[in-house]
Amino acid sequence: MYNDTPIEEINQLMNEAWNAFHAYRKLSLKQRADFMRTIGVELENCGDALIQVAMKETNLPEARLRGERARTIFQLNSYAQACEEGTWLEASIDTAVPDKVPPKPDIRKMLVPLGPVVVFGASNFPFAYSTAGGDTACAFAAGCPVIIKCHPAHAETSTIVEEAILKAATKCNMPKGIFAHVYGTSFEVGKALVMHTHTKAVGFTGSYTGGKQLFDWANQRKEPIPVFAEMGSINPVFLLPEKLQAASKDIAAMYAGSITLGVGQFCTNPGLIIGIESEALQSFIHDLGKAIQQIAPGRMLHEGIANAYNGKKENALLQEDVHLVAESEYPSDGDRQTGVPTIATATGKAFLNNPVLHQEVFGPYSIVIRCKDMSEMTEVAKHLEGQLTATLMATDNDIVNNNKLVEAVKNICGRFIINGVPTGVEVCLSMHHGGPFPATTDSRFTSVGADGIKRFVRPIAFQNWSNSLLPDELKNENPLHIWRTVNNQLTKEKVS
Amino acid sequence: MYNDTPIEEINQLMNEAWNAFHAYRKLSLKQRADFMRTIGVELENCGDALIQVAMKETNLPEARLRGERARTIFQLNSYAQACEEGTWLEASIDTAVPDKVPPKPDIRKMLVPLGPVVVFGASNFPFAYSTAGGDTACAFAAGCPVIIKCHPAHAETSTIVEEAILKAATKCNMPKGIFAHVYGTSFEVGKALVMHTHTKAVGFTGSYTGGKQLFDWANQRKEPIPVFAEMGSINPVFLLPEKLQAASKDIAAMYAGSITLGVGQFCTNPGLIIGIESEALQSFIHDLGKAIQQIAPGRMLHEGIANAYNGKKENALLQEDVHLVAESEYPSDGDRQTGVPTIATATGKAFLNNPVLHQEVFGPYSIVIRCKDMSEMTEVAKHLEGQLTATLMATDNDIVNNNKLVEAVKNICGRFIINGVPTGVEVCLSMHHGGPFPATTDSRFTSVGADGIKRFVRPIAFQNWSNSLLPDELKNENPLHIWRTVNNQLTKEKVS
Repeated sequence: MYNDTPIEEINQLMNEAWNAFHAYRKLSLKQRADFMRTIGVELENCGDALIQVAMKETNLPEARLRGERARTIFQLNSYAQACEEGTWLEASIDTAVPDKVPPKPDIRKMLVPLGPVVVFGASNFPFAYSTAGGDTACAFAAGCPVIIKCHPAHAETSTIVEEAILKAATKCNMPKGIFAHVYGTSFEVGKALVMHTHTKAVGFTGSYTGGKQLFDWANQRKEPIPVFAEMGSINPVFLLPEKLQAASKDIAAMYAGSITLGVGQFCTNPGLIIGIESEALQSFIHDLGKAIQQIAPGRMLHEGIANAYNGKKENALLQEDVHLVAESEYPSDGDRQTGVPTIATATGKAFLNNPVLHQEVFGPYSIVIRCKDMSEMTEVAKHLEGQLTATLMATDNDIVNNNKLVEAVKNICGRFIINGVPTGVEVCLSMHHGGPFPATTDSRFTSVGADGIKRFVRPIAFQNWSNSLLPDELKNENPLHIWRTVNNQLTKEKVS
Repeated sequence: MYNDTPIEEINQLMNEAWNAFHAYRKLSLKQRADFMRTIGVELENCGDALIQVAMKETNLPEARLRGERARTIFQLNSYAQACEEGTWLEASIDTAVPDKVPPKPDIRKMLVPLGPVVVFGASNFPFAYSTAGGDTACAFAAGCPVIIKCHPAHAETSTIVEEAILKAATKCNMPKGIFAHVYGTSFEVGKALVMHTHTKAVGFTGSYTGGKQLFDWANQRKEPIPVFAEMGSINPVFLLPEKLQAASKDIAAMYAGSITLGVGQFCTNPGLIIGIESEALQSFIHDLGKAIQQIAPGRMLHEGIANAYNGKKENALLQEDVHLVAESEYPSDGDRQTGVPTIATATGKAFLNNPVLHQEVFGPYSIVIRCKDMSEMTEVAKHLEGQLTATLMATDNDIVNNNKLVEAVKNICGRFIINGVPTGVEVCLSMHHGGPFPATTDSRFTSVGADGIKRFVRPIAFQNWSNSLLPDELKNENPLHIWRTVNNQLTKEKVS
């Protein structure tokens, strides 16, 4: 239904985005924020029609999609508020000291946008990490035009969202080229977008293979550009002894829910649970298996994802010393898009020796690793690759008494949870949705929370400028009333 | 005199750095700051001996080296102060909202160190951008051990500085492996350092060829790591008409000084001056040439740099439509390390058509570009690659009346100067020493000022942790009394 956008058209769109950049970056923070809020209003105005199309394209249930749209609007509004509030600009002023030898000039610094940002929509979040999702919102707040390559699995949904954004752009008198929408199922479209000379940054949420390819292209350019690719995780959960002893039943119930939530199609899905051989661990595995048996399979996003799930799961189960604990006992309906909840188990030794078990099986699957002792559990933590999240199920005693494990886990994750589940990514400033490679291509940035804006900006210092010619953000009188660091002191006061 | 460090020894040092990282990152901000200040004291304690060795190795004059050591100590002290003050940690707290649907958990975020940082010392700043220089200071403040590859052109100087750092480490009870010093003239040493699995970031100041090679290696690793390479610039200076008319003599005198300062061996040296054909521009070129004739050649850092300077300068002067304006008239002393101050000129058209003229000629050389009008000058600005600095010599009228030029220049530089010279990089928070590629490999970071710490840290979010188990930076009572964002408000108050 939707043909790949021709390369000549992509080049044209990138040129328009480049022109739009020069106009858009000069607009005020308030104008950017108004535009973002208007997109939220237009998304709401899409009404039920948008939800129905998304249901058809993604197999996601209505309540989930309504929730996700609300979350997407919340993202737009909260990043708009952060944009306007201006702390993220890191405005800094060092006033002149003419008596110094040599004299210290007046120097003022703030963050400015990089230029057009190419966003690759994710399949598993058709709203929140897609066309009008977090990357788009952050780029608009930063002052950057956005060119989105919509995910082919929900092209119709994306097209409706595109129209909402373009309506908002018209209402807010945004420059032509502020937003463009590109279709692509081929390798060439993605490559043309990343390699275009006017592309200045890339945002991506999806698979390791996809994200790493974009990263490699971006670094092979004559002018390399930053890529923030969030590439998923196995999100290890460590069951510490005292906590497991006290609450194995509750943990099993909680995790049966987390593993199968949304048919396991979250990048924060707990795909790895690590415990120490004990009766409590046996009970936990038993209870988790029982619970999983009672959970109905669900339709996955599309047949490709279901095939990948089944293939990776089968491969994991074929590995030496890996055993199936339980699968959903619901009878098969023969639907090839179904993902069947599954729990496996293996020893710590098997896990340490087999890299296949470290790979993500995207879907409602988790493997419980049985370590022989805390020392082996710590070894497992040390051998894990970078993760978006890691979780400890632990009493305070467990944490205090197992410092080596805690430090090893801290070193490999972006978000460190105690006694909870990793699924559910709260949208707030303190959230970090990122992590060491291969969870993302740059552990220094996040794709959730207003700090995600910082992926798409760079500092510029103004030296010896007249006050009247400086950007408002840096004028003595602080007309925007933003937080600034003046001679090393954070303040909202004007410069005297 | 100094053999390349064997690869096995490098591997051993990296392992020690990795172990040191786990101890060092747990030390308090105050302990890090004390260590940094002690390094400053030990550098001072090196006394005249250090200056004498550096003079012998670099041909830099005594006053310059004394000044540079003082600057290096100032860097250590001021980044230590920033480290302790803690605003750079970007501590952020969102408290739980249990009534929200779904409930909002308690989430707190701060920046934590990446791991061992490999620093490549620069040849042109044996102290300030070398062994105990800005990259090293930022890494120590961040909580990262440092492995330095000293620049072979001043290995003895670097060895003395190494000893000062190790003395400070012993005095402050730093973990073994906190700092290591590596010699290398070969390709293999640099590659082994960048490719080592325990290396988590790289800092570099030097040539495009060197920096780009490190960047490429780092991105070819199984786990890519961030590289901040500052690779120099031609630092364009735009002479706007009203200002040039009013002050061509003063500008010529000021720039004759800036072009030849330190025998032109600064990454912020103004290698390109752009004006519009006019009598005033002719006078300026004449006066600049006259002034350059009166400036004595100086000995460059080493013969390799002098050869490169002469080769690149000759090549530039051979380009079509490029003319020599003036050279220093001091008689040659036959010293092969000498760099002769030189001014060339070409038309705007020649510059726009010839990429050779966009390349850095590292040394006391600058080319004056004569544009036919403001429109051509703006084209020149648009065609420039990324720059550390750009300068306008301009009246307020010039700036207000030439918005297109000003915006084009702003888009390609890291520091934007009005009516000054780019040489002289003030060490303060508002300084930005960075810029779009190829000035650096990542325009989002700086290598001067305490924000340089941010190259070597990543966020981590703590979700649902007991107050007593959180790092001090994130505890309710704010025991370190640092600035934090609590529920979206910047404050030093405790969390109630």
